Amino acid sequence: MKAARYYGPGDVRVEQIPEPEPKRGQVKIKIAWNGICGTDLHAYLAPFIKFPTNTVPNEITGETLPVTLGHEFSGIIVGLGEGVDSEKHSIGQAVCVEPIFSCMKINTCAACRAGTRNLCNDVNVIGIGGFGGGLAEYIAVDENFVHTLPDNVSLEVGACIEPLAVAWYAVKRSSFKSGDKVLICGAGPIGIFLLKVLRSLDPTAVIVTCEPTVLRRSVSLEHGATIAVDPASTDVVSAVHAVTEGQGVDIAFDAAGVQESMNACLHSVKARGLIVNVASWEQIPKVDTNLMLLREITITASNTYTGIHPELLQAVGSGKLSGIESLVTSKVSLEDVVDKGIKSLLTEKDKNVKILIHP
Amino acid sequence: MKAARYYGPGDVRVEQIPEPEPKRGQVKIKIAWNGICGTDLHAYLAPFIKFPTNTVPNEITGETLPVTLGHEFSGIIVGLGEGVDSEKHSIGQAVCVEPIFSCMKINTCAACRAGTRNLCNDVNVIGIGGFGGGLAEYIAVDENFVHTLPDNVSLEVGACIEPLAVAWYAVKRSSFKSGDKVLICGAGPIGIFLLKVLRSLDPTAVIVTCEPTVLRRSVSLEHGATIAVDPASTDVVSAVHAVTEGQGVDIAFDAAGVQESMNACLHSVKARGLIVNVASWEQIPKVDTNLMLLREITITASNTYTGIHPELLQAVGSGKLSGIESLVTSKVSLEDVVDKGIKSLLTEKDKNVKILIHP
Repeated sequence: MKAARYYGPGDVRVEQIPEPEPKRGQVKIKIAWNGICGTDLHAYLAPFIKFPTNTVPNEITGETLPVTLGHEFSGIIVGLGEGVDSEKHSIGQAVCVEPIFSCMKINTCAACRAGTRNLCNDVNVIGIGGFGGGLAEYIAVDENFVHTLPDNVSLEVGACIEPLAVAWYAVKRSSFKSGDKVLICGAGPIGIFLLKVLRSLDPTAVIVTCEPTVLRRSVSLEHGATIAVDPASTDVVSAVHAVTEGQGVDIAFDAAGVQESMNACLHSVKARGLIVNVASWEQIPKVDTNLMLLREITITASNTYTGIHPELLQAVGSGKLSGIESLVTSKVSLEDVVDKGIKSLLTEKDKNVKILIHP
Repeated sequence: MKAARYYGPGDVRVEQIPEPEPKRGQVKIKIAWNGICGTDLHAYLAPFIKFPTNTVPNEITGETLPVTLGHEFSGIIVGLGEGVDSEKHSIGQAVCVEPIFSCMKINTCAACRAGTRNLCNDVNVIGIGGFGGGLAEYIAVDENFVHTLPDNVSLEVGACIEPLAVAWYAVKRSSFKSGDKVLICGAGPIGIFLLKVLRSLDPTAVIVTCEPTVLRRSVSLEHGATIAVDPASTDVVSAVHAVTEGQGVDIAFDAAGVQESMNACLHSVKARGLIVNVASWEQIPKVDTNLMLLREITITASNTYTGIHPELLQAVGSGKLSGIESLVTSKVSLEDVVDKGIKSLLTEKDKNVKILIHP
């Protein structure tokens, strides 16, 4: 079958590899759509620690480079391994995959024992650490990672469930409550999905997005941002204070991960406000700990997700999170994943929100 | 009367000023003891924003420099202004003073309205922004800022209630619960008082102090630290992991405020651990937001205190916080406040924990 294989930064090759067959407890999925994630882009530019190397295999998968890329995917079950729960999974079922895996050594790993697999020291992701990936025709996956899509949820939206889960979990960790005012720095897919989740909880709260590209500001306004600020031309903090009557926001999500976004968050939250970091950082920022002290500001972080796929899928199925399809700005074939997928997202941010790949 | 007056960095003069008389709602206190605070030391070295200048008066007190220094003090009531509540205050009463004042414009100031005076934009302190200070023979203070000392609490301990309140409030904000493991970076007075408060809540929990001076490490061991680590000679994070069986601490208090202490806190807390900053920072630190993300670490801050003096005084009176007197390493007369007080604390950290001044 065809698969996009990651050999290292700048080196992703679409090539033929053997089709996987489901082992005991696994299902085989014919992949429908796979979204390209910011992490894929980071890894295309520079080594990313969660990938194995040519010589050092991943501790859990045992795989070295190359590995198949892709961890935001949906598809149809086409095969069942021995012992798969037939009450839960059957041939022809439309599914998405929760790709996080961890050591699960619950005797020694406090994070896995506590049900917070996302905080395991060895946490990794299908499509990064090995176990196949979504940028391929087929994958065989442990049935425990497979979630059935509700009837009215398309396979395109199914491929967006993974980044939606990042946003859903971050909002949950923020303890957002109806009426809270919010700043979202960065209106890429995660920033927009944060907006979608917040709007599903409160249709009218003040939500400010801060984003340099025209398209993404425009998309965030279409999806319910109160205002969308261009940080290149507008003072973000003044804009936030203008729209919150000088009070500042209760919560700021940093989905940009740059010094400027950290500063904007710190100066935009009210006293005892909360900053939730969901970004990976290329440069470690300075954080004004004196300002944090004066205003008793809290910074926390939200790392992927754990345990929230069932409630998220229920919410999407119930129609509370509508219009996700419209965030897919381009559909590309697997052969074109590098030029029309990865490179397009790296160089043409103003043309794209979410790109889906079809094998 | 004699008073130590702050004219600016490096310029504190003991001079004669008029004795204050209590206005309506004020009590006049003959000051017994005043502790020298880290903020006093900062202001002796460099301009500190909360002092007025020679030309710009403080917005609330209306005073310009010089102002009387000192905000950690106890004394005896020697005069009552008109309208003072005689059920609460009487001549001869031993008291301490809660020196925080704020705008109290509750129509426009959300912080004052919410009962969080410490987060008012104009928050200030008696002995910094004006209204007299504890480094003098007498002070006249609004009766609402005056707390009666329990019978068994000495005037020396009374002068320590203010920094103890900083520690009490920080522990309260940390939501420390019995059994939580803790790192305290910095074993100056605030670090030691944090230790005292934590030990009053849990006599046996693992509490690590991290402090470069021999005396303060020794004092922290006398007052219940499980281990006291010298960051100059020992890897703090390894020491923390050794004493917590590799798990890390639940809470780290940063009472040092340097890059090294921030790093030690970040690498010492367990997944979803909490860092509570109580320090003022001379240099803004870099904060490893990627590590925070991977481990969902939270950093918050605790700014002075608000509303906790009654419960703190009850705890001290009940004997739950004993041995405070032994932290007073030197008693100095007001005439010697600069040479034997401020300069001694700046240059001879290894000889001092808390210095009290007697007018």
